[in-house]
Amino acid sequence: MTRIALLGFGSVGQGIARAILEKGLGITVTGLADSRSGVIDASGIDLSAALDRKERGEPCGNLDISSMDVVEEAEYDILVEVTPTDVETAEPALGHIRGALQRGRHVVTSNKGPIALDYPGLQALAEECGVFLRYEATVCGAIPLIRAMQEGLAGNTITRICGVFNGTCNYILTRMAAEGLTYEQALAEARDLGYAEADPTYDVEGIDAAIKLVILADTVLGMRVTLDDVERTGITLLSPEALQLAEDQDCTIRLIGEIVPGAGVLQVSPRIVAKTHPLVVEGTLNAVTVETDLAGDLTFIGKGAGSTETASAVIGDILYIQSRHVQSS
Amino acid sequence: MTRIALLGFGSVGQGIARAILEKGLGITVTGLADSRSGVIDASGIDLSAALDRKERGEPCGNLDISSMDVVEEAEYDILVEVTPTDVETAEPALGHIRGALQRGRHVVTSNKGPIALDYPGLQALAEECGVFLRYEATVCGAIPLIRAMQEGLAGNTITRICGVFNGTCNYILTRMAAEGLTYEQALAEARDLGYAEADPTYDVEGIDAAIKLVILADTVLGMRVTLDDVERTGITLLSPEALQLAEDQDCTIRLIGEIVPGAGVLQVSPRIVAKTHPLVVEGTLNAVTVETDLAGDLTFIGKGAGSTETASAVIGDILYIQSRHVQSS
Repeated sequence: MTRIALLGFGSVGQGIARAILEKGLGITVTGLADSRSGVIDASGIDLSAALDRKERGEPCGNLDISSMDVVEEAEYDILVEVTPTDVETAEPALGHIRGALQRGRHVVTSNKGPIALDYPGLQALAEECGVFLRYEATVCGAIPLIRAMQEGLAGNTITRICGVFNGTCNYILTRMAAEGLTYEQALAEARDLGYAEADPTYDVEGIDAAIKLVILADTVLGMRVTLDDVERTGITLLSPEALQLAEDQDCTIRLIGEIVPGAGVLQVSPRIVAKTHPLVVEGTLNAVTVETDLAGDLTFIGKGAGSTETASAVIGDILYIQSRHVQSS
Repeated sequence: MTRIALLGFGSVGQGIARAILEKGLGITVTGLADSRSGVIDASGIDLSAALDRKERGEPCGNLDISSMDVVEEAEYDILVEVTPTDVETAEPALGHIRGALQRGRHVVTSNKGPIALDYPGLQALAEECGVFLRYEATVCGAIPLIRAMQEGLAGNTITRICGVFNGTCNYILTRMAAEGLTYEQALAEARDLGYAEADPTYDVEGIDAAIKLVILADTVLGMRVTLDDVERTGITLLSPEALQLAEDQDCTIRLIGEIVPGAGVLQVSPRIVAKTHPLVVEGTLNAVTVETDLAGDLTFIGKGAGSTETASAVIGDILYIQSRHVQSS
């Protein structure tokens, strides 16, 4: 049985808990925390009861137990860090992850902050402590993209990564093109459907997409870049007329993130793309094309966000460590 | 250094040799065979010289050394079996693979025959002997599809696999739709470009696609099926008029392979598909959509055949074993 400590009990954390409840998967949760409370129970936490408490708007655990208490005191093999991303400081996730690695525990995270801010440091710490640090869920949710590049395409040189990395922007652009909506109208619709935050800056200014480029550059391409290195334009100034002009040429507009390691290109910007292009996906989907020397171009399309979708990537990472762990012990 | 024995020195085998020559990758070739000859050299075979001999139309090695001699006598960690597929008997690849597994050697293959015909037996033998059997290259060439389903999507239940599995048919259908060619004209063009064999039956009757469904069903979905279980219709009877009718509705026709494990569906047939559908890819590309319970729908697009593309998948498998091997030793 693999014991995990689960930090973060919002949409993603609850998705993970539900998947474990339904499927078992050889996983037991011995530590759990939300932003207000925590539970530590070496014999396995009752996830149904914890989900019920959240459902009623209560904290998931004991107000005297903090997430850092869980990191330091719970008995677990893998820390699963799925708290919300803070782009500036990466905290409290960064502290959680460092604490777990220093205790010699594996870490799986969906939190973009720590990986974008200090992947080299965290990876070095993980190696020093002989444990795994996995972060598939940080880029493109359900799509097993990082694993495909690091393992499936091992042996290839990746010459370019190009894609639609933000589902919120893609939804807004899809709706503007399909219905002739203004940016504001499409944004309002996205908010109503829960696809956009009250403050949408992070998505619509291309920050989220840029962070994903930083993560891919640092973790897969061996570059050393920060958010400041990404040339970035959002979608807030796009007009229905611009989309109509694209439409007239059988094209549309998508917010495209691009990395060309050989040329130092790191860019997020709205681009005119032929409608038949594989990156032109609808709604909140993500799509990424990877250019390689041996395998040619590969395109991956799937859901980039969502509770069960992100849980899928996190669980894939947990099971990856589980399988290695079992084989090496 | 990982030592491999390479059986099959046609397009794929030469692609692998070239990649090793150019990239190193920590791989040395200690055994090599084509259909007529073989070389065994524990200190590492000169791949440049072997490629030159093939270039001149000569056998790659010594006529007194057979591929089975290489399997049984060479010193290697991994047998790389990339001889041509025989759908009926799977030989000589089946014997090569069994021989290597029985010697306690890992096996990587691009040969569909043995995996489609006897995956359960070979996998059991590999487990008994404590070695890996890897076959990513057998389905969709460069796309790391099997690995994505077995590992990236671990924890998911796969409810449906649906895709364009044969590049030759896709090329023919693309050309019929784009230029109004007849089936015979498009086939002749595909032959000229090397996309179709002199006898195209294997591709155009859907046999190749059906074999890939059998491999996915047996290896990823835990089914136990054979080629006879696949309901199969090829593309030979399609007329330009049928494609035009589809075109009139903003649709086109693709040869689609589909597995629905819960309903026992295993089917290859030409289907009318909306042009905006992610499976509508152009030319010789492959595209596969995987439906899952947690991750939703994921689509993978890439080159399904070709020398370096198939080599990419084979090398990915070699490096997978290399990384596990190194870590456990």
